[in-house]
Amino acid sequence: MKKNLIGNAIVGQSGGPTTAINATLAGVFRGAAESPYINKLYGMRNGIEGMLDRRIIDLFEVIDTEEKLRMLELTPAAALGSCRKKLPDPDSASDTDILVYEKIFRIFAENNIKYFFYIGGNDSMDTVSKISRFAEKCGYELCVMGVPKAIDNDLIATDHTPGYGSAAKYIATTMQEIIRDCAVYTTKAVTIVEIMGRDAGWLTAASAVGSVINGQAPDLVYLPEKAFDLEDFFASIEKAFEKHPNIVVAVSEGIRFADGRYVGEGTQSGSVDVFGHRYLAGTAKALEMAVKVRFGCKVRAVELNLPQRCAGHLFSATDIKESVAIGKEAVRVAAEEGISGEMMIFERASTEPYVCNVSHKKVCEIANMVKKVPDEFITEDGSFVTEECCKYILPLIEGEIAPQYEGGIPKYIIL
Amino acid sequence: MKKNLIGNAIVGQSGGPTTAINATLAGVFRGAAESPYINKLYGMRNGIEGMLDRRIIDLFEVIDTEEKLRMLELTPAAALGSCRKKLPDPDSASDTDILVYEKIFRIFAENNIKYFFYIGGNDSMDTVSKISRFAEKCGYELCVMGVPKAIDNDLIATDHTPGYGSAAKYIATTMQEIIRDCAVYTTKAVTIVEIMGRDAGWLTAASAVGSVINGQAPDLVYLPEKAFDLEDFFASIEKAFEKHPNIVVAVSEGIRFADGRYVGEGTQSGSVDVFGHRYLAGTAKALEMAVKVRFGCKVRAVELNLPQRCAGHLFSATDIKESVAIGKEAVRVAAEEGISGEMMIFERASTEPYVCNVSHKKVCEIANMVKKVPDEFITEDGSFVTEECCKYILPLIEGEIAPQYEGGIPKYIIL
Repeated sequence: MKKNLIGNAIVGQSGGPTTAINATLAGVFRGAAESPYINKLYGMRNGIEGMLDRRIIDLFEVIDTEEKLRMLELTPAAALGSCRKKLPDPDSASDTDILVYEKIFRIFAENNIKYFFYIGGNDSMDTVSKISRFAEKCGYELCVMGVPKAIDNDLIATDHTPGYGSAAKYIATTMQEIIRDCAVYTTKAVTIVEIMGRDAGWLTAASAVGSVINGQAPDLVYLPEKAFDLEDFFASIEKAFEKHPNIVVAVSEGIRFADGRYVGEGTQSGSVDVFGHRYLAGTAKALEMAVKVRFGCKVRAVELNLPQRCAGHLFSATDIKESVAIGKEAVRVAAEEGISGEMMIFERASTEPYVCNVSHKKVCEIANMVKKVPDEFITEDGSFVTEECCKYILPLIEGEIAPQYEGGIPKYIIL
Repeated sequence: MKKNLIGNAIVGQSGGPTTAINATLAGVFRGAAESPYINKLYGMRNGIEGMLDRRIIDLFEVIDTEEKLRMLELTPAAALGSCRKKLPDPDSASDTDILVYEKIFRIFAENNIKYFFYIGGNDSMDTVSKISRFAEKCGYELCVMGVPKAIDNDLIATDHTPGYGSAAKYIATTMQEIIRDCAVYTTKAVTIVEIMGRDAGWLTAASAVGSVINGQAPDLVYLPEKAFDLEDFFASIEKAFEKHPNIVVAVSEGIRFADGRYVGEGTQSGSVDVFGHRYLAGTAKALEMAVKVRFGCKVRAVELNLPQRCAGHLFSATDIKESVAIGKEAVRVAAEEGISGEMMIFERASTEPYVCNVSHKKVCEIANMVKKVPDEFITEDGSFVTEECCKYILPLIEGEIAPQYEGGIPKYIIL
């Protein structure tokens, strides 16, 4: 792509919310505001889906003070809205498929768009890759850059994803508090905490970091990367009861038995509520019942649920700083180096002391793949994570930064 | 009771954890440390239950720096441990019943205990009342004081309970974040958030305070104080969909139908999981199914669960300040005024500006009763709370105060 294209830029957010996705948007804003090559920065409402309906706003107009920009940095969940639209194959021969691209590029042309920034996860990188390919194909001069976000930390090629650090900090902190809460009584009890992560256990692994800080951690930690065995689980609980009466277990929502069935999936079968409906209860709930029957003690299932990905009151300062930086750098490499069709990445130079650099990589090598927790980060028996794993996570949750408060609740921006 | 008894004091914590229960313990510590009448302050491990096993510690020895005392103030969940023991009637004629009291008072005598402070909820005030009555009966000179704690805010006689403000702040904040998270997509969806509160809806009411601050609040709020009607609920959802596609509903775990059945209770019947066990899923889960069947849209149940009562990373500064003050004042009125058999209370002098005083009241008038959310705090149709209700809550969640952090997670004290 040509360097120093002069024109307007457009930015969108896509996929599931994270607490840092707006920090990256603010970074793109800062980069665009500084760039001599970019005149206007448009924001797509609800990603590519909203852009197709021409729902775009002029961000330099809407965010007209440093205070608002700062507030955007410390606001969780996509401020521009999100979508889950999958674009068709740009090489498709179907007329309907081509129509979508024609419309997209007509809107680009109408608004003199020369830069397209898309903040998202795996699926969004697929969009970046496709728009980039279509631009080449039709000869439209456009720099297309993907900027990653994912609480799950499951994108390959990058050391970690923006948004993971804050989610991990929330989980690590909440786990410290749940452990304290569970320890106040002397009666035998098992608390099972379910953490997000269908295929990758990065978030669940974060529940264990206390083990290398203050020794306070769940007794058992199960990730989807290893097959789950119920009898081994019972044996581990029995062993843990020898140490103390209050056992805390962390499980990824996506743990499965060796035969591939999800541990939580069975809870669908045959369950009927007061209204006569069948439903799915979840992994922790399924294990709660199993432990209750086996040990006869008090058991409680806790699903951390949505707050994991939207708890803006507990940002990781490192995550926010890096998320802004990667967004800003995306603009710089596009405008100054003419990079296109790539995703921004983090490269860790060192863990102690933590040094991490921003770079970029061809998006076609990245999209649609999942980065799992490696074997050496999980203990051999699969019931905990290693010290090395915790040390990988620690710098990402470092530092506290609070949003503004008004009337006792956080003050977040609405665009 | 005689004023200015000279001797030792003992303090215990009892009932469910709160984030502010240790702030009150720290307040008792500060009061005892300043008092010329108190020599030593003992802490019971696991309340009266641990005291019966002589598991007591010398708190002046264990907490020997202001830094540790400050860390105790900002540590959630009973640092001394808790219990749920109910003492027998002190007027009982049974020998076994009397033996318990004889043992308690033998331990008091052995340790020259002249002051007994008990931090807890309803059941704990029952303990305070009974120990006080037995002391009188047997002529043992003892000042017995209850200091309230309850996230549920359900104790009568006091304007509010220590611990409620922090739990309410956590709920109000988390609700702001969940509303943002749910708003990123344009597809129709209902999110049902279940909040603690079996008989009183104070915590659920806190989810609505955004309505008087920034207009961001759940669409619907249901408390246990009003009968829940499924058809009315469906009609309210339909109406809310006219305004926006992302509906958020807050429900108390204890909401019931007009016939008295808990909304969540039906989920017990007939439900069988992969292990063949029956289980109880909860109120939000039951409603999730009902809404899914009726509206066919995406529905999600979120149970805020344990973090409501242990999220020390999000204290209300007002709550912590008041919780310390009420503990300290308990010691002063016992030692200097000879008050005994009473519970400390808050008396609100004014809401705007917020002025609240610490006082005390006979415990026999308080124990074993539940303070419900009054009618005038709930809208007529029972689907929201009034502005007056929000204004009552607002000063209690005001102000932020953070624990120390180490390695990215909060640093809490372990006694």
